[in-house]
Amino acid sequence: MSYLSVGVSPGNVPVSHGNNLREVDRKIRLVELVLRCVIFGVAIVSTVLIATDTQVKEIFSIRKRARFTDMKVLIFMVVVNVLAAGYSLVQLVRCGVSMIKGSVLFSKPLAWAIFSGDQNVEILAYLMLSAVAASLQSAIYAQYGEADLQWMKTCNLYKKFCNRMGEGIVGAVLVCLSMVCLSGISAFSLFRLYDDDSSTGKCPT
Amino acid sequence: MSYLSVGVSPGNVPVSHGNNLREVDRKIRLVELVLRCVIFGVAIVSTVLIATDTQVKEIFSIRKRARFTDMKVLIFMVVVNVLAAGYSLVQLVRCGVSMIKGSVLFSKPLAWAIFSGDQNVEILAYLMLSAVAASLQSAIYAQYGEADLQWMKTCNLYKKFCNRMGEGIVGAVLVCLSMVCLSGISAFSLFRLYDDDSSTGKCPT
Repeated sequence: MSYLSVGVSPGNVPVSHGNNLREVDRKIRLVELVLRCVIFGVAIVSTVLIATDTQVKEIFSIRKRARFTDMKVLIFMVVVNVLAAGYSLVQLVRCGVSMIKGSVLFSKPLAWAIFSGDQNVEILAYLMLSAVAASLQSAIYAQYGEADLQWMKTCNLYKKFCNRMGEGIVGAVLVCLSMVCLSGISAFSLFRLYDDDSSTGKCPT
Repeated sequence: MSYLSVGVSPGNVPVSHGNNLREVDRKIRLVELVLRCVIFGVAIVSTVLIATDTQVKEIFSIRKRARFTDMKVLIFMVVVNVLAAGYSLVQLVRCGVSMIKGSVLFSKPLAWAIFSGDQNVEILAYLMLSAVAASLQSAIYAQYGEADLQWMKTCNLYKKFCNRMGEGIVGAVLVCLSMVCLSGISAFSLFRLYDDDSSTGKCPT
């Protein structure tokens, strides 16, 4: 792996060291697979938690229903979560096909294509981060209010609604962090190709 | 440059083509320099616009002063803006020294160090994006209110304050976009080293 042995040609690496590197390489690819699974699973859970969150309150005989659509930013969050889940599903299918057919991703152009694909992870991570930051800000206003601007707390009225929404946002934070890690791993995988032409884009075997 | 000619060894590139690539390379390095200047200048302007923004209103004989500290997220924005300006200043000084001393950044370890440094741009870009997203969300609430949550508009009271804050946030968006571009250019510059050992990290000559 180039980023652990820049400037060391494969022929100069002792066999035991080479085996260690192969082991680290296998572990990195396993981490990639786990991250893609985490993104897919958690994005689905987060979407369901947010999109189905609702609570009805009766205030002076007026029934009021809190819904995630009351905060426009949560609609944006749900859309980005669905995009993240869809993207990860496509990557997992690609990974599954590659595991069944064997290691088919030796070529540099294909590695570049995967790297470009993982730039979508970075774009999605940026989108997710925007949604998470804006949602967190809204959640803080809802939880604590903003006295200087006379924005009142709403979470003391809709406690159950707020708690579930908080769980959804925590899920989105996890998805966002996983995407950032995945994007970093993808970039390093491309660097590896330039010292050692093996294993980039493969799924763990 | 590797990302325009992957798989083409330097020896096989016709001279005129090589000259074209050198020209493109020079332009990319110029864009890098311009981006660093933009980040430094706009981050300073944005910080000043936000941190000095204030407006006094008399409501029923009560004097009320609007300040950027009324929204906690704007304090976060100012801190990140200052970090961005400081980082860009350091990089510009490095660039200036390199231009005076000549092209000193031929080595891979040094290119890696610069690349690692530009990962700070990515971290700063993530921080800036969080601050911008949260501030924009707060600005939307301040401008339009959120009827469902009974959060009232405040910008019809503090029009001048809000306009200036908006200009500050637009500046921060520009800084954030410049950082994302710079981070991408930095990653590609490192790739270049693996096909062609020249010019990475140099300042335009």
